[in-house]
Amino acid sequence: MRKDTLSDTETLNDRAARLAPKQDPGIVIQQLRAAAAAPARGDEDLVLKQVFPELSGANLDEARNLRDAYRQEIRDIVLAPNLSAERLAKLRRQMAVENLDGFIVPLNDEFHGEAAPASSERLKWLTGFTGSAGTAAVLKDKAAIFVDGRYTLQVQNEVDTTLFAPRHVSNEPMSTWLSENMAAGETLAVDPWLHTENNMTALRQLTADRGIALKPVETNLIDSVWEDRPPPPLALVVPQETAFSGESSADKRAAIAGGLLLKNVDAVVHTLPDVIAWLLNIRGADLPCTPFALGFAILHKDATVELFMDRQKLSVGLKEHLGNAVHLFSPEDFGDQLGRLTGKHVQIDPAVTSQWIVDRLEEASALISRADDPCLLPKAIKNAVEIAGTRAAHVRDGAAVSKFLHWLSEKASGGDIDELAAEAKLRKFRRSGENFKDLSFPTISGAGPNGAIVHYRATTASNRALAPGSLYLVDSGAQYLDGTTDITRTVAIGEPTAEMRNRFTLVLKGHIALAMAVFPKGTTGSQLDPLARAPLWAAGLDYDHGTGHGVGSYLSVHEGPQRISKAPSAVALIPGMIISNEPGYYKTGAYGIRIENLVTVREVDGPAGAEREVLGFETLTLAPIDRNLIDRSLLSAREREWLDGYHAAVREKISPLVGPKVEGWLKKVTAPI
Amino acid sequence: MRKDTLSDTETLNDRAARLAPKQDPGIVIQQLRAAAAAPARGDEDLVLKQVFPELSGANLDEARNLRDAYRQEIRDIVLAPNLSAERLAKLRRQMAVENLDGFIVPLNDEFHGEAAPASSERLKWLTGFTGSAGTAAVLKDKAAIFVDGRYTLQVQNEVDTTLFAPRHVSNEPMSTWLSENMAAGETLAVDPWLHTENNMTALRQLTADRGIALKPVETNLIDSVWEDRPPPPLALVVPQETAFSGESSADKRAAIAGGLLLKNVDAVVHTLPDVIAWLLNIRGADLPCTPFALGFAILHKDATVELFMDRQKLSVGLKEHLGNAVHLFSPEDFGDQLGRLTGKHVQIDPAVTSQWIVDRLEEASALISRADDPCLLPKAIKNAVEIAGTRAAHVRDGAAVSKFLHWLSEKASGGDIDELAAEAKLRKFRRSGENFKDLSFPTISGAGPNGAIVHYRATTASNRALAPGSLYLVDSGAQYLDGTTDITRTVAIGEPTAEMRNRFTLVLKGHIALAMAVFPKGTTGSQLDPLARAPLWAAGLDYDHGTGHGVGSYLSVHEGPQRISKAPSAVALIPGMIISNEPGYYKTGAYGIRIENLVTVREVDGPAGAEREVLGFETLTLAPIDRNLIDRSLLSAREREWLDGYHAAVREKISPLVGPKVEGWLKKVTAPI
Repeated sequence: MRKDTLSDTETLNDRAARLAPKQDPGIVIQQLRAAAAAPARGDEDLVLKQVFPELSGANLDEARNLRDAYRQEIRDIVLAPNLSAERLAKLRRQMAVENLDGFIVPLNDEFHGEAAPASSERLKWLTGFTGSAGTAAVLKDKAAIFVDGRYTLQVQNEVDTTLFAPRHVSNEPMSTWLSENMAAGETLAVDPWLHTENNMTALRQLTADRGIALKPVETNLIDSVWEDRPPPPLALVVPQETAFSGESSADKRAAIAGGLLLKNVDAVVHTLPDVIAWLLNIRGADLPCTPFALGFAILHKDATVELFMDRQKLSVGLKEHLGNAVHLFSPEDFGDQLGRLTGKHVQIDPAVTSQWIVDRLEEASALISRADDPCLLPKAIKNAVEIAGTRAAHVRDGAAVSKFLHWLSEKASGGDIDELAAEAKLRKFRRSGENFKDLSFPTISGAGPNGAIVHYRATTASNRALAPGSLYLVDSGAQYLDGTTDITRTVAIGEPTAEMRNRFTLVLKGHIALAMAVFPKGTTGSQLDPLARAPLWAAGLDYDHGTGHGVGSYLSVHEGPQRISKAPSAVALIPGMIISNEPGYYKTGAYGIRIENLVTVREVDGPAGAEREVLGFETLTLAPIDRNLIDRSLLSAREREWLDGYHAAVREKISPLVGPKVEGWLKKVTAPI
Repeated sequence: MRKDTLSDTETLNDRAARLAPKQDPGIVIQQLRAAAAAPARGDEDLVLKQVFPELSGANLDEARNLRDAYRQEIRDIVLAPNLSAERLAKLRRQMAVENLDGFIVPLNDEFHGEAAPASSERLKWLTGFTGSAGTAAVLKDKAAIFVDGRYTLQVQNEVDTTLFAPRHVSNEPMSTWLSENMAAGETLAVDPWLHTENNMTALRQLTADRGIALKPVETNLIDSVWEDRPPPPLALVVPQETAFSGESSADKRAAIAGGLLLKNVDAVVHTLPDVIAWLLNIRGADLPCTPFALGFAILHKDATVELFMDRQKLSVGLKEHLGNAVHLFSPEDFGDQLGRLTGKHVQIDPAVTSQWIVDRLEEASALISRADDPCLLPKAIKNAVEIAGTRAAHVRDGAAVSKFLHWLSEKASGGDIDELAAEAKLRKFRRSGENFKDLSFPTISGAGPNGAIVHYRATTASNRALAPGSLYLVDSGAQYLDGTTDITRTVAIGEPTAEMRNRFTLVLKGHIALAMAVFPKGTTGSQLDPLARAPLWAAGLDYDHGTGHGVGSYLSVHEGPQRISKAPSAVALIPGMIISNEPGYYKTGAYGIRIENLVTVREVDGPAGAEREVLGFETLTLAPIDRNLIDRSLLSAREREWLDGYHAAVREKISPLVGPKVEGWLKKVTAPI
């Protein structure tokens, strides 16, 4: 049954109006809802205090309560799968009004990232699907939802498949489905904000080949019918000090602008939130676990920037931090400013730039160059301050994880701990660390068979006890002002089986092979990937995920362009890049194993006679690897040497931070094997 | 000074007219020149006998002599770098007549392959450049030639750089050069036969961004001014019997057409000569070392084929071999037949299909689908007959190489053998082998420092003696009716240095790692590449070429889509594919090392507990690896076991073919290490 959200809203709105009686109640409600549209975080009250400076005491508490209530209301609005039929009917009525035969509903928003704020969760609103990747296509009398292999089961549970036929995005792609279900002469509508230029080029070719008209719409059809759509998130944008970033925004802008001059480019449009955060040394809180401030920017060859962001979000002093060379505009002015680039040579990244932006540039007769965003590589190649920061953050994070592993060793063997309790405990250990801001992603806390679900997230429904004789896999990380962490440890609860020890040791051999790898400059992560898999391959085993992803510096825990994976890549590993080393093994219905450390690429001294400049990795993550799970006889002398050296470093760096009890435990679990 | 080719031609033409007095002398000359435009091969007289059936005895000898004289004349016409200034001036006059500001002269012909017949060697004719990859761009008052790193030195020696500024194709790409040297409003002409659709798309974007008009010309501007341009090659097209191909053309066509039906495709245009040779089970002799019959084909969903090829080239009985479902057309009819595909759903491969073909299809309002040529994978995945054939060919080839290595071991230590003599001797051993047709590529016979030049070809100018204390590298292969071979051996002449042995052993370790690799289905050659490099990398060494290329079955010695290389690839290795395993090491100015065997992908039994279907390699090539160059202490027990097993197989399979003397030698050089 539908919850009577309308009357609830009225009550919340009445309370909001009473909260600040001198202000326009409409604006107060809007501001509270916008604050509620941002994810919960430890420092989220700051924005309330800035927006409502007159509030204090009980009134401030009421503002907090209202925000939290609106937040729940927004969740209920966005995710209401039992309303899918009604919402689909509304969408189709709008399609009829606009004389359209089809409409594509992607999961992404106009930033094309991994997560989107509630106001952009159109696919979830329409279908109830909560996965991280998917697209729906809606025709007059048919609709389908396209998801990848991770979500083929989940989509069946979450989505009314009588409304949306579930399709495997690779085996039964949308292109085929549209070809089969649309006739020549029909019109397929898209929101040009939600498709990159590359994506639109493919859609254009597909539809042209089939004689289908492809029509960009001015207003997203869902926005036209979504009456209680949440506002964009309101969260504070704060400076990222040079003490952490290691380089002033002015210097970064000068360097990137210098590159534009060399290429005879007048301006580049930046659309990636982490690029803008890096370039301007700012951080926000618009998305969960990732300090993005959503907005767009244009960098000119004179190193000035036009930043398109809601002024209300700027923390006190941020304008001074940005300086005179950064000109602030409202998001609504973006199109006009693009329109002023007439005759200019403008660079965009067609893989991440919405067609809407390209259309404005073409209308303005700008000369468009296409290339990767020029900030991607400099952002990925961390400077000395960022590397020092991440090393320090990893010591703190390693201390938290070590305390947690020690706690597990004491409490878990009896089967009294469950996944959610463990996850909460780990979060508690991390929160006390200096510079802690947030988790870097929702913790994966998987006991027994749940550990074999690669993207598992424990819920009250799925929660399992850590049972004796099982494995427990915990993949977690945090955002510190000085660095982003991501670590996975697999722990034996009680006595593991011989098979578990065999598989864990094979995974460890792969992890060590990558950690010790020496390779010439120019080598890509794709080339190194098989080193981590070879021990499993030789046993006829493998794992179905990448071996490593790039990691930001107090930015996204997943960043490009570097990665270590089976997928082909032309991106060379460069000293300063941070990347994960996380081979695994999963036995469905039984257990999962993953050993993940972050590493940074660095130059290493080649042996005598070396002719090439060679690179290797420095392991950043510091926490014990469970020796109970290692079959020593499978390790070579060099592998044992690496493990003992790693454990010695863990002991040395973590012991000072954990107190005598954990220190004693650490000494034992990091002893030479 | 210019050779007086005109009067020579008159004499040759007079002799040609006397040869067959009853025939039109123009046609006789044309046929002899066309036969001369095909490369020399052991069986090349067949076409003369077919075209001039009335000739015999001295008259047939005269026809042969005339052909050979015309062949020399064609060589002199095509490669005349001292005429570049005159030819460039002619081209520019033609550009002026057609009101064009620029023209692009690629090296490739309309088949976009590695070699082209003399009639298409426009870049060589214009610039004198003899490399295997390059492009010239000619503007009204400037011209440049773009080559890759292999040819940056060579281009300086071969090309008048005051006429054509030499550029490194990656560091100083043509796009930049055109941007810098052409103004908005100018017109750049291209021959749409010489640019693939992908290539044209890139050119179109580049020129549109710069405001340059891109104009496809009807007639290549060089053809308009090249008065003595050779005719297309005339060489016999013969059946490839099912005893060698393992599958009838009718079955192949039915299978490919079945795939078209499933995709709702009406027809596919085949433009790759090896695809057409495979699909129709035919072989030709239009290009050196590769049995291609140049032509185009359209396969329809009813499994019928339209083949566009000069009827004069068809051997007696070929029409019966092709059967009723293959309809023969003159090459001139290709455009008209494409024009009949109105409203049809036609598949092309945009990476290899000339824009000219796409234009005809678009004019005909065909619905175009873009995908890899559907024959590429089935051709690469050899059937059981082809694998058996290649195994047999490799035994014969291994016997020839073993005889050669034995001969070297007896004759070379005194320094009396040179590169050209060795190459000739090896060719002689191969020619006596059953089913031998040709070499599969020009032999690389490199002594001492010449061995370090990866694409070396010995000439009388470069020829070196195989000196004591040096290494000799020989990379060679042959075309047998039942298979194509490609093998590299590196041999110590006299006593090698410790460094040579160290480097050779590192290369061997990489070779063995790949030969022994076990990997899950779906693994690509790019993923396996680092296994072959890791021993060198650990020593700070590497080599700057791919580790493996696909090999055809009595077809091209380089074929896709599989390869083992640093370059990213999404093509999985599939049982039946043939690929080379050829790591190397090169010390410039000193020596080169390469160890190359061909291998075929096959299913292997996984160990107990294996969960994935795993693949591995079967080594096909059979010839000793020089034990004098191996530092045994660097090999692991498993590596020594592989080497001894390999040498035992060589001994067992080659000994019966080589006579007692070589057999005795074989026993010694294949003894366990």
